[in-house]
Amino acid sequence: MKKPIILINFKAYENSFGKKGVDIAKRIEKVSTEYSTEVILSVPATMIPILSQEVSLPIYAQHVDSYPLGAHTGSLLPEMIKEAGAKGTLLNHSEKRIRADEIHDALIRLNRLGLESVVCVDRYELVEPMALLKPTAILIEPPELIGSGISVSKAKPEVITNAVKEISKVPGVFIIAGAGISSGEDVYTAVKLGADGIGVASAVMKAKEPEKVVEDFIKSGIKAMDEKNDRN
Amino acid sequence: MKKPIILINFKAYENSFGKKGVDIAKRIEKVSTEYSTEVILSVPATMIPILSQEVSLPIYAQHVDSYPLGAHTGSLLPEMIKEAGAKGTLLNHSEKRIRADEIHDALIRLNRLGLESVVCVDRYELVEPMALLKPTAILIEPPELIGSGISVSKAKPEVITNAVKEISKVPGVFIIAGAGISSGEDVYTAVKLGADGIGVASAVMKAKEPEKVVEDFIKSGIKAMDEKNDRN
Amino acid sequence: MKKPIILINFKAYENSFGKKGVDIAKRIEKVSTEYSTEVILSVPATMIPILSQEVSLPIYAQHVDSYPLGAHTGSLLPEMIKEAGAKGTLLNHSEKRIRADEIHDALIRLNRLGLESVVCVDRYELVEPMALLKPTAILIEPPELIGSGISVSKAKPEVITNAVKEISKVPGVFIIAGAGISSGEDVYTAVKLGADGIGVASAVMKAKEPEKVVEDFIKSGIKAMDEKNDRN
Amino acid sequence: MKKPIILINFKAYENSFGKKGVDIAKRIEKVSTEYSTEVILSVPATMIPILSQEVSLPIYAQHVDSYPLGAHTGSLLPEMIKEAGAKGTLLNHSEKRIRADEIHDALIRLNRLGLESVVCVDRYELVEPMALLKPTAILIEPPELIGSGISVSKAKPEVITNAVKEISKVPGVFIIAGAGISSGEDVYTAVKLGADGIGVASAVMKAKEPEKVVEDFIKSGIKAMDEKNDRN
Repeated sequence: MKKPIILINFKAYENSFGKKGVDIAKRIEKVSTEYSTEVILSVPATMIPILSQEVSLPIYAQHVDSYPLGAHTGSLLPEMIKEAGAKGTLLNHSEKRIRADEIHDALIRLNRLGLESVVCVDRYELVEPMALLKPTAILIEPPELIGSGISVSKAKPEVITNAVKEISKVPGVFIIAGAGISSGEDVYTAVKLGADGIGVASAVMKAKEPEKVVEDFIKSGIKAMDEKNDRN
Repeated sequence: MKKPIILINFKAYENSFGKKGVDIAKRIEKVSTEYSTEVILSVPATMIPILSQEVSLPIYAQHVDSYPLGAHTGSLLPEMIKEAGAKGTLLNHSEKRIRADEIHDALIRLNRLGLESVVCVDRYELVEPMALLKPTAILIEPPELIGSGISVSKAKPEVITNAVKEISKVPGVFIIAGAGISSGEDVYTAVKLGADGIGVASAVMKAKEPEKVVEDFIKSGIKAMDEKNDRN
Repeated sequence: MKKPIILINFKAYENSFGKKGVDIAKRIEKVSTEYSTEVILSVPATMIPILSQEVSLPIYAQHVDSYPLGAHTGSLLPEMIKEAGAKGTLLNHSEKRIRADEIHDALIRLNRLGLESVVCVDRYELVEPMALLKPTAILIEPPELIGSGISVSKAKPEVITNAVKEISKVPGVFIIAGAGISSGEDVYTAVKLGADGIGVASAVMKAKEPEKVVEDFIKSGIKAMDEKNDRN
Repeated sequence: MKKPIILINFKAYENSFGKKGVDIAKRIEKVSTEYSTEVILSVPATMIPILSQEVSLPIYAQHVDSYPLGAHTGSLLPEMIKEAGAKGTLLNHSEKRIRADEIHDALIRLNRLGLESVVCVDRYELVEPMALLKPTAILIEPPELIGSGISVSKAKPEVITNAVKEISKVPGVFIIAGAGISSGEDVYTAVKLGADGIGVASAVMKAKEPEKVVEDFIKSGIKAMDEKNDRN
């Protein structure tokens, strides 16, 4: 992962898949390339093989199951998303919660396969416990702000501050802030508060000009990272 | 759907996806073409767009969620599988059970989108209740025989007979028999007992020469259908 | 069950258990006795042995699991509620949905033990499918009206009418209407539309004088039943 | 909690409830009193009010839900078990797994109510993460040994050793070992390896003379604690 981390969750909107999904991914790729940065796209399962071909950005799944290969009809397994071109996956998103043992089982598999992983949590008290299970990053999102347009940066900066403090106890795991992130200012604030990047969905997916929103995020993220002298 | 229905559930085996998944699908396509019949392949989500391109057989999902389009991270929705080229989906497989209200919600969406649907049940008492929700077909599989190599045709023919009786109360819904189907004889028996076709997974997916197994199934299914004068 | 069926779901309110739970049950018992009718109380698991001792009304569980007796930590099984004095149970309440196979497994056990069962559904299309599984009654509740104070009788009378039509296809199963039932008038309307009774929770549990609310329900239910000449 | 901790999970056996459940509890109480020690009984929900009256031992629930009081039909809430006389509860048993956020929500409530809590985990890697959420104790049980009669003490002593090492990172949380514990020797070994006590189910619940089994456990636990000079 490359800081500032910008992770766009496509979710399951009407423009998250099919031609519209390819179109929005290409627009984001363009602006990402301009700034020589990297934007992660977390997409529906059917879009992984398509977007892995169509764009050069890192493609993530939105969830994986932790079953071993075998008789598991309807499951999406780490090996499948790797084969389809994914670089990593979200786990435990508030819209797809799983148990701690399932998270750990999935992380063991993902790590073995060289896939990245972002474990979502809804409170800072779960940052250290989940970080101990060795994901690539933790994404903290107060669920009441998800999709609200009111950003965690403004409404609950202490959630970010606390999460940053917690993650420092487990070296080598990134911390990403999310929920309601809508503007470059939200990104700037989150990074200055100590986050390694941000997660976003509706502000990009529902935008008329998603590439402009992403550009604003990238510029603000880079500016904050540079001020922290912490970019890589 | 075309009788005799032969539905192959790829499940999540090591050869269900990637190049191996394409290879097995092409072998099945070849024998299916020879006999001018049709074999349904129910495949992992990431394989839907790939196999819809690579083979001419009807591709099914193994499960869909019933949420509306929107903020549903990690869900696979009817619209997504249609866009990816699927012709239908399994629902409520014993390895991915869902509730009756979720089945009904999914069926409304699938029917509206012109997608086929196969609702799995584990007992004949659920055949009529689920058929009333208007799927394309019901697949009955006693779970203790799934993957056992002991076929429902031989070990529990009364399950098929009862299911056939139940389905007759709801005109317009096919009945498919599954669990342990391993040989052409199993297929022949199931169809003669009144089933419109069969569902299979391990006997094909774990075979050294899957195309031979499928050929045997096709020939036996056609023979039984012809004897019943019930083919279409 | 005795018509008009009046089923009070205690849910998990602050007054649903402990001394407050016993107090409200006794008030309801008093008015029920006055009118020589019967009111069913569906109560938290810990209250089943207590209320079975304290009041003469039929006590129901709010849910049972369908596992066999054995190594099932944390489960509430049909045999347990019977032993504790329950006469029956709700199943598949919108706040505790289970799958169709679990409903059927539980009903087999409940029927064998001589316990009554009320399977909840959220739409009329599930009335016949669930009735075919042989519960004592179906309780239909449009979930958007539950706890709303806007009654199904007024806002969606067609839900009751359709449910009554559907239940007529399966002789021997009662139909109960619920969601938002607040007044005697709501009860009267529901019964006149063909329901065998009503289900209620918040209108009683949150009332200052629950016994008055229940009295109003009983009187209106009896009046409607008498007018239909259908009481028993 | 009093060391050596001996926690007996009644599960849902045929003798876990009703008169048989009271009988077995009384036998255990008798031997417990003889040795001036304390044995925790984790019992079905309907048995909490009964056993809290009938025996002087600490009674635990086997699970609680983490919902707030309110419209939660079929849930067993911390307030309910306290009102019914419970001293604490198991959480996340392998037969009733819940998510980390649910565990944390439940623990906040239990701690506020002064109730004890034992969070079960299936691997040592989850000991520290779950201990950070502040339960009274962690119970580690390799699931493949549960009910097997092959004890964790003999078959997987390293699971206990690792768990003991992990728990030492979070002061104030007890560690209990379980799975397959059948003899006094198993208890002795577990305690000597560093556990604060043991959890058991089938070895007691399926015994002809459960009081003798428990006596053996108590004696061995006390002996090991005395040798460690660590009893309290």
